[in-house]
Amino acid sequence: MELMIPRGMRDYLPEDKIIRDKIVQALCATFELYGYAPLETPAVERFDVLSSKFAGGEEILKESFKLKDQGGRELGLRYDLTVPLARVVGMNPQIKMPFKRYAIGRVWRDGPVAGARYREFMQADVDVIGAKGMLADAECLAIVKDALARLGFKFEIFVNNRKLLNAIVKKAGIAGAKAETVILTIDKLDKIGRKGVENELREKKIAEAQIEALMEMLSARGENEKVLDELQGMLGECAGVSELRELLRYCKLFGVEVQLNVSLARGLSYYTGSIFEVFLKDSKVKSAVVAGGRYDEMIGALLGRGANLGTSNAGEGAEGAVAGNQYPAVGLSFGVERLFDAMKERAEKGGVKAARTNARVFVIPVQAEEECVKFVQKLRAQGVNADMDIVGRGPSKNLDFANKMGIPYVIVLGKRELEKGEFALKDMESGKERKLKIKDIKKLAELVS
Amino acid sequence: MELMIPRGMRDYLPEDKIIRDKIVQALCATFELYGYAPLETPAVERFDVLSSKFAGGEEILKESFKLKDQGGRELGLRYDLTVPLARVVGMNPQIKMPFKRYAIGRVWRDGPVAGARYREFMQADVDVIGAKGMLADAECLAIVKDALARLGFKFEIFVNNRKLLNAIVKKAGIAGAKAETVILTIDKLDKIGRKGVENELREKKIAEAQIEALMEMLSARGENEKVLDELQGMLGECAGVSELRELLRYCKLFGVEVQLNVSLARGLSYYTGSIFEVFLKDSKVKSAVVAGGRYDEMIGALLGRGANLGTSNAGEGAEGAVAGNQYPAVGLSFGVERLFDAMKERAEKGGVKAARTNARVFVIPVQAEEECVKFVQKLRAQGVNADMDIVGRGPSKNLDFANKMGIPYVIVLGKRELEKGEFALKDMESGKERKLKIKDIKKLAELVS
Repeated sequence: MELMIPRGMRDYLPEDKIIRDKIVQALCATFELYGYAPLETPAVERFDVLSSKFAGGEEILKESFKLKDQGGRELGLRYDLTVPLARVVGMNPQIKMPFKRYAIGRVWRDGPVAGARYREFMQADVDVIGAKGMLADAECLAIVKDALARLGFKFEIFVNNRKLLNAIVKKAGIAGAKAETVILTIDKLDKIGRKGVENELREKKIAEAQIEALMEMLSARGENEKVLDELQGMLGECAGVSELRELLRYCKLFGVEVQLNVSLARGLSYYTGSIFEVFLKDSKVKSAVVAGGRYDEMIGALLGRGANLGTSNAGEGAEGAVAGNQYPAVGLSFGVERLFDAMKERAEKGGVKAARTNARVFVIPVQAEEECVKFVQKLRAQGVNADMDIVGRGPSKNLDFANKMGIPYVIVLGKRELEKGEFALKDMESGKERKLKIKDIKKLAELVS
Repeated sequence: MELMIPRGMRDYLPEDKIIRDKIVQALCATFELYGYAPLETPAVERFDVLSSKFAGGEEILKESFKLKDQGGRELGLRYDLTVPLARVVGMNPQIKMPFKRYAIGRVWRDGPVAGARYREFMQADVDVIGAKGMLADAECLAIVKDALARLGFKFEIFVNNRKLLNAIVKKAGIAGAKAETVILTIDKLDKIGRKGVENELREKKIAEAQIEALMEMLSARGENEKVLDELQGMLGECAGVSELRELLRYCKLFGVEVQLNVSLARGLSYYTGSIFEVFLKDSKVKSAVVAGGRYDEMIGALLGRGANLGTSNAGEGAEGAVAGNQYPAVGLSFGVERLFDAMKERAEKGGVKAARTNARVFVIPVQAEEECVKFVQKLRAQGVNADMDIVGRGPSKNLDFANKMGIPYVIVLGKRELEKGEFALKDMESGKERKLKIKDIKKLAELVS
């Protein structure tokens, strides 16, 4: 048997997993700071849930891993964390609205493997269900700001609104089924440029006058408020513009800087209002590291019984939240793999040595195993991640081991040290040593923490 | 479409997920305290790896979820965390020995669903690869002690040694293929009693004299050292007895109390030395919450090339560790589901109200939304998990919401409070209120944390 890992999947050895854990911890801490509660659902879903036409869509479904249980039930590995969220909301009418939840977990897509595309990857989602106003949308962006700042990234947040896009397309005289495909083309403006978009619209048999009208509206540039003024001038009163104005007002309140990008649509047709996309500055990671938006209709449609379920919460004082028997929702998905790639890139640039363990100190016994066990246990009781040689190697091999593991401090403890009651704490980076009393565990704990 | 979750799987809504997170955090923290490093492998493995005859065994394989990728490759959901560990070790000869790793993740078994058996469940494993002595074994038990104490459980650790069992069976004159099946029966002593074991041995065509000899050796009771003395008297020099003596000596050093149970075998034939099983006291959870042991041959056999790989580490100063071209290994698996059930049981007994969020404080704006956003942001900047009404409900409905969510503190902030620069911090459990200055965010942060 040749040892192999499934195609498109990765192992995270300790040096990588330690970085991933830092990302997950920073995201968790930020989500909880904003009052979001954790949810965990199975990796596996029933295939009929995954394949509902209001779920992830045909393209995603084609990439779903299918399996069966011993009862012959058709199942699939989840391809996102939104469909499970909708299922949980549908199955648990006791959940109080607004439901602010986060979920961090792996998802699977059996797609082509190329570049940074994996068949197993981790998503970290925050969503609010049951809140209509732009305050919830702005709160999501405040989370982006805090989480990415916590991870030390510089970034740019782009916003748009699906209602604005709809109004622009309508104003250009495009209606019905064509509106959707035109928006898909407009979405490519940043990628293929104005000429590219115009050509694709021509291929889609859009009239020249309509293309011209579209381009005029899409070319509004400059300060966010100025662009909105211009668009309002062209479109008249428009829900998209009003929502964006409200979003901008709240963002200012949260201290979140955003940039309006009128062509942003994010492909997905399920967005109904705000659309968000976040990119890193100064990184080779060029794809969005966070993306999301408002999807007021998706959950109700997926559950296929918004009319019943909406009211089951109404009696719980949620009228303000779940009105009109809908499940208004807004959320974001952090791409953990992309953040991971960016973290590794930064560590490599900074010449940071990878740690292969979280141990802070390594103790090397020289014919003093028992005393070392006791000593290390005292250190652990102080909350210090500590390790010691357990295979009886000589000091130089142990030093080499600690160095290769990236453990920052080493202590050799032998007969001489025990007699003197004193040892040398070796800083592995500087090579400097510092004398310390064996008894003074607290001081040692402080120094190495 | 009827909304359903796959059979044998569970959602963890926030009130449960918060408890699970506490368990995982306590385990992680303890593992890292002892210098273990995190490893993450895919949920999916190639089926030929899972089905290797040195892997989990036939019974487990029957319960494996199978799937295929679009390239037609046969895959399966992992059924444990040990086979992936062996694969990682085989594929990464650069890993330094001893390799002390932990892994916390879900595994899947498509078995019968009954009682507390699930088809998706979480395991938390610690293993040391490349260390032969009993120091590593005792360290694992020290981790059990610290982790379960951290979670507030009382427990009993039982130990045995496979070499001792082998010697007992051999001494009774049972050899070859029969030895294995006899040990499987002996393992049931605690469950079906002496009579039950004797009957099963008779069914397995073991001679009466042999049964009698076995029972005499297995009936040794009392202090650990006394039992070992007795067994040594019957068996003569025996590696199993020596290893147990060494283990007991190290356990004493670590301050870990253990109880020798001579009939303990844990079914699995891959254990080669120490065998561990840990049970909770004062809990309805009667199955083992932690189990494990030493498996010195499994990884080398699974890799099928111990002779080559063992030496690839030898040049890295690992002679002491990986000698004789083997992968000596010892490890433990914490059953997160069982610990979760026990945590819930304890919370229910103690009348602890379930929290549906980790938010510590809920702020209710009364016509002061903007000021509340700013206020809550200041609180979050102090590291306090804080939430506020974002759907514009009235104060009494908001109080009711905060109460149902289990948020411990509530603040109403309106025009009056803003004018006076003062508000009342309401303790939701006692109902008591305390006046605080709006400006004094640090004091508030201290009080609610």
